Amino acid sequence: MTRSVRIIGIDPGLRRCGWGIIEALDNRLSFVAGGTITPPVDGDLADRLAALANGLGEVLDKHSPDEAAVEETFVNAGARSALILGQARGVTLVVPALRGLVVAEYATNLVKKSVVGTGHAEKNQVALMVKTLLPAAVIKGADAADALAVAICHAHHRVSARRMGAYA
Amino acid sequence: MTRSVRIIGIDPGLRRCGWGIIEALDNRLSFVAGGTITPPVDGDLADRLAALANGLGEVLDKHSPDEAAVEETFVNAGARSALILGQARGVTLVVPALRGLVVAEYATNLVKKSVVGTGHAEKNQVALMVKTLLPAAVIKGADAADALAVAICHAHHRVSARRMGAYA
Repeated sequence: MTRSVRIIGIDPGLRRCGWGIIEALDNRLSFVAGGTITPPVDGDLADRLAALANGLGEVLDKHSPDEAAVEETFVNAGARSALILGQARGVTLVVPALRGLVVAEYATNLVKKSVVGTGHAEKNQVALMVKTLLPAAVIKGADAADALAVAICHAHHRVSARRMGAYA
Repeated sequence: MTRSVRIIGIDPGLRRCGWGIIEALDNRLSFVAGGTITPPVDGDLADRLAALANGLGEVLDKHSPDEAAVEETFVNAGARSALILGQARGVTLVVPALRGLVVAEYATNLVKKSVVGTGHAEKNQVALMVKTLLPAAVIKGADAADALAVAICHAHHRVSARRMGAYA
């Protein structure tokens, strides 16, 4: 007998962190919830990261996902931008891990390939395919759509996720 | 009447995260404790970050510092290295912030200047001056010495730390 699994996908960011939750039962996926966490843009970095952690913690408390999947930040920016992105990403990885969830990671290209069929899809194609795969989804913005795409990618790859996802 | 303040300095890293705690009463500084958190080098990144968060949380629970100071990671590496450093750094910023501590940030050069008198000091000079400023210190390795240097820097700069430390 197959049990359904509830997956949270996360698209990390310090200003806008998308999240999306789906249920997967065999090959059937259904939309649960989605949104965007927007920490204050002013103030100490540590406080902004704490707002991100608290926002994500509230989502986890409310929806109790079984597993988490985080998009690997695409690093084509300079080292300083990558450092800032990394700080937000570290928070989105550690919050579910501290609650005992397995946290898988997926490269952006793999997420796009899983959802659209090609690793070079545009953002609007991703959103369109998410809406097609999850007809009931209420998608609140591009970051929430990306997060749902990460959750869908994890639903397709979750058996081997632990092996594929880790990098040091 | 002046009240003493207990400060934790943190030198972030995923493999070795130094920490050092001092008490500051006016211009007098005294050593409390120091060490290095070493998360497992294998396994999922999220689990390694959770080990870092738990290790730092234990230090905070045991020593109850009033304020925290984190070294700004020196980014001369590529974007991918900066991303990895940033992830560990995000965790070291958010753990004390979630406990309500003010978390200041200091550039490496400012830390060196505060402790040695020049922003271009070598690592061993920093350790030597930390030992001179905190004669009772039991310094366990270079990362712990760097963390004590960050704490000393914060003791010198803490009044204006909130204004100086934040960056977006």
